[in-house]
Amino acid sequence: MTIAVNENNTIKTVERNDAGIKTAIDILKQQFGDNLQTSKSLREQHAHTTTYITPQLPDAVVFVTSTQEVQDIVKVCAEYKVPIIPFGTGTSLEGGVNAPLGGVSVDLSRMKEILAVNAEDLDVHVQAGVTRSELNSYLRDTGLFFPIDPGADASLGGMAATRASGTNAVRYGTMRENVINVTVVMADGDIVKTAHRAKKTSAGYDLTRLMVGSEGTLGIITELTLKLHGQPEAVIAAVCSFPTIEAACEATIMATQCAIPMARIELVDEENIKAINIYSKLNYPETPLLMLEFHGSESGVAEQVEMFKDIAMECGGQDFNAVSSLEDRNKLWQARHDSYWAMRSYTAGKDALTTDVCVPISRLAECVVETQKDISDNGLYGPIIGHVGDGNFHTLICFDGKNPEEFKKMEEVVDRMAKRALAMDGTCTGEHGIGQGKRKFMLAEHGTGVKVMSAIKLALDPDNIMNPGKVIDFSV
Amino acid sequence: MTIAVNENNTIKTVERNDAGIKTAIDILKQQFGDNLQTSKSLREQHAHTTTYITPQLPDAVVFVTSTQEVQDIVKVCAEYKVPIIPFGTGTSLEGGVNAPLGGVSVDLSRMKEILAVNAEDLDVHVQAGVTRSELNSYLRDTGLFFPIDPGADASLGGMAATRASGTNAVRYGTMRENVINVTVVMADGDIVKTAHRAKKTSAGYDLTRLMVGSEGTLGIITELTLKLHGQPEAVIAAVCSFPTIEAACEATIMATQCAIPMARIELVDEENIKAINIYSKLNYPETPLLMLEFHGSESGVAEQVEMFKDIAMECGGQDFNAVSSLEDRNKLWQARHDSYWAMRSYTAGKDALTTDVCVPISRLAECVVETQKDISDNGLYGPIIGHVGDGNFHTLICFDGKNPEEFKKMEEVVDRMAKRALAMDGTCTGEHGIGQGKRKFMLAEHGTGVKVMSAIKLALDPDNIMNPGKVIDFSV
Repeated sequence: MTIAVNENNTIKTVERNDAGIKTAIDILKQQFGDNLQTSKSLREQHAHTTTYITPQLPDAVVFVTSTQEVQDIVKVCAEYKVPIIPFGTGTSLEGGVNAPLGGVSVDLSRMKEILAVNAEDLDVHVQAGVTRSELNSYLRDTGLFFPIDPGADASLGGMAATRASGTNAVRYGTMRENVINVTVVMADGDIVKTAHRAKKTSAGYDLTRLMVGSEGTLGIITELTLKLHGQPEAVIAAVCSFPTIEAACEATIMATQCAIPMARIELVDEENIKAINIYSKLNYPETPLLMLEFHGSESGVAEQVEMFKDIAMECGGQDFNAVSSLEDRNKLWQARHDSYWAMRSYTAGKDALTTDVCVPISRLAECVVETQKDISDNGLYGPIIGHVGDGNFHTLICFDGKNPEEFKKMEEVVDRMAKRALAMDGTCTGEHGIGQGKRKFMLAEHGTGVKVMSAIKLALDPDNIMNPGKVIDFSV
Repeated sequence: MTIAVNENNTIKTVERNDAGIKTAIDILKQQFGDNLQTSKSLREQHAHTTTYITPQLPDAVVFVTSTQEVQDIVKVCAEYKVPIIPFGTGTSLEGGVNAPLGGVSVDLSRMKEILAVNAEDLDVHVQAGVTRSELNSYLRDTGLFFPIDPGADASLGGMAATRASGTNAVRYGTMRENVINVTVVMADGDIVKTAHRAKKTSAGYDLTRLMVGSEGTLGIITELTLKLHGQPEAVIAAVCSFPTIEAACEATIMATQCAIPMARIELVDEENIKAINIYSKLNYPETPLLMLEFHGSESGVAEQVEMFKDIAMECGGQDFNAVSSLEDRNKLWQARHDSYWAMRSYTAGKDALTTDVCVPISRLAECVVETQKDISDNGLYGPIIGHVGDGNFHTLICFDGKNPEEFKKMEEVVDRMAKRALAMDGTCTGEHGIGQGKRKFMLAEHGTGVKVMSAIKLALDPDNIMNPGKVIDFSV
């Protein structure tokens, strides 16, 4: 593999290293035996993408159980300049596990140990392969929980690597705020623990935050310490219909300014409601809907609900309905979680692409409405669902993958959506990451910042073996 | 100036560049006229340290008013390889504004523009020289405020550069959590804006968090966008005495686990209370005291106070006293803010050094008690005050600077305090930064992480012109 730096100081990987890959796999096979596999089906599974991005298979998959084993792999791959692609649960949406230059997929899903729960410090130390559901099941009796919930039951290492987020982020933050430290195997095989367990520190560069969101391009996260939160004493969920997207966003803004500490504020647009009503046998008005959750003490959540209801009514909200029993709340959120399947069912036979952007909340309504119009003007079906407390929304654009014209229209809509968000001082991706799919927006979003990122990448991974072709490597 | 990398891959700056400094200052004088000064008194003021670290003067001070002017300076200094030391209000506690190799101090204190308040988005865009008090005065009528309050009325750029924190961090976070983006002039003169204004993003490496806490060693922060928060509807302050440090910490831990969203939890130890009682004419029991503040709705804060009081009583707390009027609250916090002067007055004639560490809260009582014992075993006076909700505490060690033996004892106590915190999985500095004073603990705290930090520094500032001798440059 040869590296060059182009005019933007970005990385250029120019060739696949067949001989190195073969040698490295032969050496690793000696150590890992049956935990190294090269069957096509397994390699295909490890290049699985949930988007239209073409799968690019690794040459081998190695199942690991420890940081030490990851270090062993990296040392061999570093010597022979072989790409290493970390793999958690494979739920990346932007081609994050693809292997454009082949190489070794390092599967961390067997790294399932929960190493320490420090209840007094509200933190937990886990191996990277533990999923968020597994962690919360383990914590159930402790009175603590881990709040970050991207749709998928992703691995915590993968969630850190992609700076994942989800419905609870409006209150509890994203992985950026909830990772205390990570243990990383760097491109030279060094094991780096990015911080101790103190809640804050001013000792040196924030390597934790540098690794969180680096998508495996700077190193492989093998262990991490995460913040935990006390399970709320009381939880109330609610829905409220609004005449327009603008009205729903206005209510969200007012609630935020009044410092109502809402745990979830999800916007479901009218197209989405139609699909949900059919799929989940509900009868919400076919207008924008907010789905809400309030966490706090018994009296605290009651007060929050009243405050929010007043704001919602002032903004034209209707059919406000709050529920507190676990069964009712689960029913409400099940409909939200099933919205993907509701939309797929509504457009049976179509292909679908999910994408997201995030903008300052003052621009959210405008961004959603313009995106809705663009989708419908192009004859596509693309309902919108959003974590509106953060200014973040997704669309699932349905299209006929065998129809090149429709495919092109879909791509253009996605392009304009990202550029629209950037023009509104937003980001081309709030929580899906860059991977391969959104590299084309990096220069528009970061300008000279891409030079800085590239310089860091080159400094820490001079041979570009760590998940090449992702984030800031525009060449393959 | 010549750079070498030693066995730990750390930076080694070996000589002062007299000729380059002279040339650069001559060129800059042409552009900046009277805004470039070389008087000794001004240069001394710009190398002022609040510690025992010897001042090291820059060769010139340039007052700037825009990012463009900073870029102009950096381009000249980059060409002639001249050190650049950013200066905000000069309140660094670890020698952050010292100029060990001379060079140009860039004074940003005239960059006072508040460029935009985005009330709906709860953010504000400011120039780096605005101080936190100036910002809050400006915001007073908007219903919003900026919560981070290090003791000093520091500049917001300096607070970002040093990852500042303070009494409100337990609820609102530190600069790490409250900076949305920074505009930075890099060592090559590039202007980089690290992010757009979206509340979250998963687009590429987190350059914002990399710059926050880098202490001017990677670039100069000239503008920043900060999160704002709604002014709480109701505020109650309170004090409660405890029989022991352990009891006070136990109450803090229980309150955190019960998710009481306290805005401030400050521990004042018995030595400190004695000084405060005299200085502020108060009569608190001479036992450890917690000073607290609760923010929320009227009924919310009342509930929080009751919950905390119950916990405090369970832990042996006594003399719990809550106050809600602005006057009473100001009186209570004034005593806290004056504690530095109370201690100085109590030990009139002595020199004093303030230092801080931060540990997981489960180890806090142990760390405080061992530190108290170490101080008194060495015949020193060093009261302790702490942001205990974060596990962070400070001591102000008083000593006779003319007595070499006492000075040495003081240094040894500070050393052991940092090492004790590290051994408890904490950090050698919670909020004071590394500067020059704590570089010696970097390897113990970060191990191989120092290699990563050094590689980043070398990649972004290959000539080591950005605030040399700080954070990871151990040589000067």
